[in-house]
Amino acid sequence: MFQRIVVVGAGRAGRPIAERLSERFDVRVTGRELACAGADLVILCTPDAVIGDVARAIEVGPWICHVSGATRLDALAPHQRRVAVHPLQTLHADAGPGQLDGAFAGLTASDPDAMRVALTLADALGLRPFELADEDRPLYHAGATVAASFLVTLQRAAADLVERAGAPREAVDPLMQRVVERGFIPTGPHVRGDLSTIDEHIVAIAQQRPELEPLYRALTRATELLASR
Amino acid sequence: MFQRIVVVGAGRAGRPIAERLSERFDVRVTGRELACAGADLVILCTPDAVIGDVARAIEVGPWICHVSGATRLDALAPHQRRVAVHPLQTLHADAGPGQLDGAFAGLTASDPDAMRVALTLADALGLRPFELADEDRPLYHAGATVAASFLVTLQRAAADLVERAGAPREAVDPLMQRVVERGFIPTGPHVRGDLSTIDEHIVAIAQQRPELEPLYRALTRATELLASR
Repeated sequence: MFQRIVVVGAGRAGRPIAERLSERFDVRVTGRELACAGADLVILCTPDAVIGDVARAIEVGPWICHVSGATRLDALAPHQRRVAVHPLQTLHADAGPGQLDGAFAGLTASDPDAMRVALTLADALGLRPFELADEDRPLYHAGATVAASFLVTLQRAAADLVERAGAPREAVDPLMQRVVERGFIPTGPHVRGDLSTIDEHIVAIAQQRPELEPLYRALTRATELLASR
Repeated sequence: MFQRIVVVGAGRAGRPIAERLSERFDVRVTGRELACAGADLVILCTPDAVIGDVARAIEVGPWICHVSGATRLDALAPHQRRVAVHPLQTLHADAGPGQLDGAFAGLTASDPDAMRVALTLADALGLRPFELADEDRPLYHAGATVAASFLVTLQRAAADLVERAGAPREAVDPLMQRVVERGFIPTGPHVRGDLSTIDEHIVAIAQQRPELEPLYRALTRATELLASR
């Protein structure tokens, strides 16, 4: 289906993707000089903001793929042989191809031939594919942002609170690690319906870290809302 | 300092605590029958709501300790030789004493002798101690709840969003695992100041999962607030 692959960009996504594909394909990594001659697949691993510009600079012919979660397929115009494969994973340039293993990936393609290309690429990368319609992309990317960006926010909020209470900031880390390792089993006063403890939390936060009170309240409401899922 | 320990309760906290202490001490596990004769330390691993009742039923004499994050020291009245040691970890009855390793623990004691007892106990349990004043307990426990309970909420919210977009619910799990493993490195549109992507998220959530919009907005505000920490 493809043998000669060009990966544009050697950053957080480009490096592990190129390393993984090099195990099975002839892979060249390029920068903005765009040496794509002879390629039958070009994978754009550039910042989202320049995907359109880079795509337009590549001569029409090979399959072209972007790996962005937020970017629609038509950013790859004028190319029609185009797909998107978004690894739902936080990648690091120096962490090797193993970081792709077991991650899911949203695949977008506008026809069955293109979807076969996307599936072949996802398989070669070690990703678990699902189909992602372009119109569902903003909601999907919002979910990814909740999972990744806001997990960091949650850790900082928790660290802030325990630090104010005299604990080391890092005291929350083993707790969060374990909750994830054990598969997100619900615990705590919200599960027990212990409203007096929740009220005590809100009083303490309002007094000592009032800027976090709206977050605590929003998380409490969401916990009630999502409890049945 | 103590040799004969009674652990009251064989649940999520009681079992791993008794297992760990049995490596070095003479430990007996008891239920509500409260066979505490001859003990020099009694550790209450009961539900928070009954700590006071159980403490009052134990004859004054041995050191007495509770392991609750939310409960004040004076719940152990009429005992004066009393401490609290709260492992900041989510514990499971069947997961063995190793789950205590590396966790932090909040220690509360009203005098230096009592603090030495608490420190000895924390050390025997493999916990990393810090001092927790009773008046800081609600804020501390709020932080623990943010770290553990709301981490589950966050995973459910993220799973909900990607599921609505056609992905498997579990697609967010490898992402969240990696964010934790890598030590909570900030990523995503909030870090990049990519306001148009954030706006697209809010529009999509408002249309397709409006009950989660307040959570997304509160997390966005908290992310801005906490970014500098």
